[in-house]
Formats: sequence, structure tokens, C-alpha cells
Amino acid sequence: MFMGASTKQGQDIALKSREIVRSLISDKIDHLSTEEKSIVERIVHSTADVEYAELCHISSGFVECSIESIKSGKDILTDINMVRAGINKYSGEVKCFINHPETIKMAKKEGITRAAAAIGYAAEYGFKGIVVIGNAPTALYKVIELVEEGIMDIESVVGVPVGFVGAAESKDALEDTQIPYIITKGPKGGTPVAVAAVNSLIQLSKDNL
Amino acid sequence: MFMGASTKQGQDIALKSREIVRSLISDKIDHLSTEEKSIVERIVHSTADVEYAELCHISSGFVECSIESIKSGKDILTDINMVRAGINKYSGEVKCFINHPETIKMAKKEGITRAAAAIGYAAEYGFKGIVVIGNAPTALYKVIELVEEGIMDIESVVGVPVGFVGAAESKDALEDTQIPYIITKGPKGGTPVAVAAVNSLIQLSKDNL
Repeated sequence: MFMGASTKQGQDIALKSREIVRSLISDKIDHLSTEEKSIVERIVHSTADVEYAELCHISSGFVECSIESIKSGKDILTDINMVRAGINKYSGEVKCFINHPETIKMAKKEGITRAAAAIGYAAEYGFKGIVVIGNAPTALYKVIELVEEGIMDIESVVGVPVGFVGAAESKDALEDTQIPYIITKGPKGGTPVAVAAVNSLIQLSKDNL
Repeated sequence: MFMGASTKQGQDIALKSREIVRSLISDKIDHLSTEEKSIVERIVHSTADVEYAELCHISSGFVECSIESIKSGKDILTDINMVRAGINKYSGEVKCFINHPETIKMAKKEGITRAAAAIGYAAEYGFKGIVVIGNAPTALYKVIELVEEGIMDIESVVGVPVGFVGAAESKDALEDTQIPYIITKGPKGGTPVAVAAVNSLIQLSKDNL
């Protein structure tokens, strides 16, 4: 199994792609650790967008905290179901509450997005683990708010929401916290970036046993 | 309901984003029809990547064939589950066979990727409708092969596989067929592009009733 490929042909493609990615970005990620390199390489592999080599910022401690969380089988929480659908090799649970009746109720009552309300719902039931935001800046702001208020206690955040409204600012705000993170600077990011980061962490936690 | 947003805050963000997208790309998509513009705008909204304004190529007839297919409730077939998870407002069925036992058997037997075998399985059971390839070039090549051999009969293809190995070439090959298509030129593309295109077509088919 290499980068999600389960057949010989799939693995050959993944290997060739990884070589191309390395030749394109190795000089830009020279300052990163081996594990951080492998996360960024997988993101560029998944998006075919070399810009991510420079847009990805990883806080010190992010890789260790995240691998520890995965090894101890803690839940992974995603903002939307597309992200959950892409994380398919985790032996623990991957949760998403965007369609949960309590989320829908909370969103209406508080006048917030469902993605943000879904984080609120996860905090209420006592979620611990890695939070993965691949789409909604409002969900990332909610994570920051609840952690800073001491209502939510998490291990790390994959914070890569996308869009021209609030995404860049929400990621800047995450950088100003004590939460271990990976972000993509600016408006870009999204579900494939989120999925690539998490699947890479899952792989690293297996290599690292 | 606007661009997938179901709450007031979500709709406000989507509206503001659409305005920003228009200001960034309107000169680049001036030659497109109103429907085509709305598809490309949604792709740029979903990826926060203005490059897609120029990378998206849409064949004449693609919008009409796709809307007709959606209106008549035909199935939508996706290469991977992440794409299926993002298409959430369709009253018809959205199918993905990548984890189907027959697909896994066929991939092993023929030495092809599971994404390609999943297309082969869909052809066998007589799939008709829109095919959506958001990830695997091998799946797009399989669609082209089966349509050209007369084994598969489809309405249109959202052909936006991503990657440095084969993706660009597979999309060039689709452009050389008679199949109505949307593609993204070059290595870039991916699940958010695929989902944005399909969700935009679903919205257009409702506006167009």
C-alpha cells in the first residue's frame, strides 16, 4: 500500500508521481523534517499544485501530537462528509456531524453555519482527537473559540478551509493560538489537501510503530 | 439554497464569495454562455483558485446533455467516494463502485486500477447518465475506451482527474472524442472541481425547469 494505491498499476502511478513531486518541490521544502516533507509531498501529489509546497505551514509539535493521537486510536472529526469519505485507512473512528439533527437545530437557533454548529455539537459530547477542517472557515473559527474558552480539548488541527471569504483570516487566527496545526496560507486549501494531510499522518503512524 | 449553503450565514458567505469570484475572473470567461459561466464561477468559488477560469474547457452541447440527463433522473457515476459524498442535492442516484467486490475482483484479474475496474463494472450493469471523474486518469481512459468500443453509452463526462502521471493526457484524449465534456487542462483538477461542476449542473437544471 503506497499513497492509497491498492493495485500494482495504482502503486506504479503513485511512485512515479512521488518522484515528479520531489523533483518539483524538493528545494522549497528543504527546511522541513522528514515527516513534514512527506505530508507536503502528498498534498502536492493529491492536488498537482506545487504552490502548496510554499503555502503549507506546520507548527512545531504538530506531527508528534497528531501521530500520538492516531496511535492511541482517538477519533478524527471532519467539518464535511467529503473529507470523511477520503479518510479510508484509519482503524479508529472518523466523525462528521454536519447532518446531525442536533447540529441543524443548533445552526438555526444560533444563526451560525451548520459546519460551525457541527463543531459545537462535537464539543458538547466531549470530542478529543484531531480536528480536520477542509472546507468551512466558520468551523475553524468555532474550534479556536471553543478551545480558547476551555470548552474543547483537542490534539491538533488540520486547518485548510478554502475560499475568498474568511478562509485566509481563519488560518491566520489559528497560527496565533497554542494549538498544534497545519494550515495553507491564503484562500487556497480544501478537501483534497485535508485528506492528503490526514492520510499521510495515518501512514506515518504505521511506519513509526 | 445558494451554492450549497443552507443557513443565512452560509448564504451570505456564498453570495459575497460569488461577487469576489466575478470580479476576479469575469474578463476571462466572457466568451462563455450564462450556464457555462455559472459552472466555472462555482469551480473557482470552491477551489479559491482563479487559474481554473482558464483551465476549464467545456464542449458545445455539454451543458444541454448534462441538464437533460439530470432532469430525466438518470444515475450519476463517480470514480471515488469523495466525489459522491460531495454531490448531495440530487434527487436521482449517485453511484460509485470502487469498493464493490466485483470491482476488486476485476482489478486484480485484469491488472488495472480499482477506479478503472469500477467503470468497467458500471458498463457491465448498463449504466447510463453522467460520468464524473474527479481523481483517476485510468478511470477516464476506461470511459473513453468503453464508449468508443460501443460497450458504454453515456450522456456526458465531467473529466477532471488530477495528478502528474497521465491526468493531462487523459483529458486531452477526452477532448478528441465525441463525448460531451468539461475538463481542466493540465495536471490540475480533483474532487472539489468535479463536485462543483456537478452541483452547479443540478442547480441549473432546477432553475431551468
